[in-house]
Amino acid sequence: MSEEIKVQLTATPGEKPDSQKLGFGKYFTDHMFVMDYHKDKGWHDPRIVPYAPIVMDPAAMVFHYGQAVFEGMKAYLTDSGKVLLFRPDQNMQRLNCSNDRLGIPEIDGDFVIHAIKTLIEIDKSWIPTEKGTSLYIRPFIIATEPCLGVRSSYTYQLIVILSPVGAYYSGGLEPVKINVESDYTRAVRGGIGFAKAAGNYAASIKAQENAKKDGFSQVLWLDAIEKKYIEEVGSMNIFFKIGGKVITPAINGSILKGVTRSSVIALLQEWGVPVEERKLSIDEIFEASQQGLLEEVFGTGTAAVISPVGELHWKEHTMKINEGKIGELSQKLYDTITGLQSGNLPDTRNWTITF
Amino acid sequence: MSEEIKVQLTATPGEKPDSQKLGFGKYFTDHMFVMDYHKDKGWHDPRIVPYAPIVMDPAAMVFHYGQAVFEGMKAYLTDSGKVLLFRPDQNMQRLNCSNDRLGIPEIDGDFVIHAIKTLIEIDKSWIPTEKGTSLYIRPFIIATEPCLGVRSSYTYQLIVILSPVGAYYSGGLEPVKINVESDYTRAVRGGIGFAKAAGNYAASIKAQENAKKDGFSQVLWLDAIEKKYIEEVGSMNIFFKIGGKVITPAINGSILKGVTRSSVIALLQEWGVPVEERKLSIDEIFEASQQGLLEEVFGTGTAAVISPVGELHWKEHTMKINEGKIGELSQKLYDTITGLQSGNLPDTRNWTITF
Ligand SMILES: Cc1ncc(COP(=O)(O)O)c(C=O)c1O
Ligand SMILES: Cc1ncc(COP(=O)(O)O)c(C=O)c1O
Repeated sequence: MSEEIKVQLTATPGEKPDSQKLGFGKYFTDHMFVMDYHKDKGWHDPRIVPYAPIVMDPAAMVFHYGQAVFEGMKAYLTDSGKVLLFRPDQNMQRLNCSNDRLGIPEIDGDFVIHAIKTLIEIDKSWIPTEKGTSLYIRPFIIATEPCLGVRSSYTYQLIVILSPVGAYYSGGLEPVKINVESDYTRAVRGGIGFAKAAGNYAASIKAQENAKKDGFSQVLWLDAIEKKYIEEVGSMNIFFKIGGKVITPAINGSILKGVTRSSVIALLQEWGVPVEERKLSIDEIFEASQQGLLEEVFGTGTAAVISPVGELHWKEHTMKINEGKIGELSQKLYDTITGLQSGNLPDTRNWTITF
Repeated sequence: MSEEIKVQLTATPGEKPDSQKLGFGKYFTDHMFVMDYHKDKGWHDPRIVPYAPIVMDPAAMVFHYGQAVFEGMKAYLTDSGKVLLFRPDQNMQRLNCSNDRLGIPEIDGDFVIHAIKTLIEIDKSWIPTEKGTSLYIRPFIIATEPCLGVRSSYTYQLIVILSPVGAYYSGGLEPVKINVESDYTRAVRGGIGFAKAAGNYAASIKAQENAKKDGFSQVLWLDAIEKKYIEEVGSMNIFFKIGGKVITPAINGSILKGVTRSSVIALLQEWGVPVEERKLSIDEIFEASQQGLLEEVFGTGTAAVISPVGELHWKEHTMKINEGKIGELSQKLYDTITGLQSGNLPDTRNWTITF
């Protein structure tokens, strides 16, 4: 796509939020990127406009049939004042993978990265600078055609909004308590679990809120078929260090292929730490825990980067991990990835874009 | 809820569509019903306003996490010029069941029926009168809070829009060809399949479009676990008449509890036709077909009422049903239900509301 991005700047710039109170996804910058799709015209009219409500027909398909996908990535400000993006090409690849599964037209990933860069340049003053903060980038695509037939929409809108965010988990790198969900399921093979599709998250809210009420920060999903194999956490992939080996569930069609997950696997391989992508049952984990071999557990995701798990609850069992403290490997992964993201560690893998 | 419904009438009534070209869900009436929810105020501000685009923050949760449910029902014009609703209480019950699963606050079903009646009275002239046409009623609830955290929204909007519709399947009562989907899945136990939630439909679009390309009108979903038990069709439940008995999949957590389905079961029981709600495998159906015992197959749903299936494709097999003609029982069910809906048959079961 080579159409020029039209830019309309806001006349009323907003006030920047207190960087101590950012939270996650509560504040938005002055501008957004918008691009339309029509089945006869393809993607067209890319533009940057003031952040403002969008106007949609009440019959727009997204409201009824959930044809909607999204991505999540972050921009960081380096010490030298540049903006850094971490593997945005991976997010664009995944967006197209989600698009394909949901019947949404492909986007030109390079063009959308170009649009995101242009947008961030305009709203650069919104990137927070405190440690652990960043600018969260949320590209999403929604079906806009006003029609109640169940089919792919003929029209879509791709929108990118930006949100200055603090640490995702208010506890920061504090190890979290996670509950293994035994009743509800999130996704199943043949479904849309591997896509970053709106419907997957709607399906997860109830279990997530039940877990919160019981004092857990997240649920750990098991597979829907045998209710025994580990899938992933609410918005993170998950890794287990057992007897010196690191194990994470293989990509199986029902879990998201996390960008942080791929990066962690690559780093472990570089470091010579044995890492396996395979089926992993909750029984195997429980056994390892009983034998004192469950050394570290951590979630991986854009929001938290690495989120150490201090306690894993399963039915009546409580597995305490590394005495509830962050493990050595978890810490090293966190330091390395955040080091790359802040520009403090040299990028030898071609993972970052700065501008 | 006892708050009064405010009414603001349109100054520019729209033109009625050609009743020969209605299609499904393409035209909308002059007004819509809207009601807001805020976690501190509950449902409030019920109002009827001119049908118009709604204004939503781009961060509204529905766009990102698909927290959205809906219902589908119809209003019919009787010969005596009254409006008839068919079992709207069932739709309200199901809406609350969907709400509960998706973490959306309960609605007062009686109040929403009252609102729907008020809305239809205002837009009564939009109810088409040709045979097979009706006014489709689409209540839906969407999460409106502008926040990117994955949790239940604090604010929602319930909207009811009305659409004059023709026959759902352009072929009318012509038996349809259906393909048994072997790869994709729609839902699984522990998931949201039993809810009328937006995400379920997003998940179904790709398989549905593949089936269309291959010349089928719908897909028949199998269970996600063993890929062998019948679930339902795109937007219909399904019934099989085998050797004089009628069998339909039991409500199992992954299929929708159709209002038409319940009505068909009740009628069959009244008529003394043996009817079973149970697990039913595709192998059992194939065997019955081989033995010449597969007498009738039909889908049930608000849109089509009864949709006879003339051909069922499964892998390399084609099962022809009743020589591709509508079966006697299917026809009788269709005539009875549409008779009740048009007010031409007396309502002895307390299924209809007229006003
Ligand atoms: C369901 C789910 N799993 C895993 C992840 C982690 O993916 P990533 O590392 O690309 O952020 C996410 C997103 O953040 C997610 O939503
Ligand atoms: C998935 C699904 N199954 C079954 C049905 C049939 O339900 P009802 O008879 O209430 O219209 C519908 C809705 O129309 C549906 O969307």
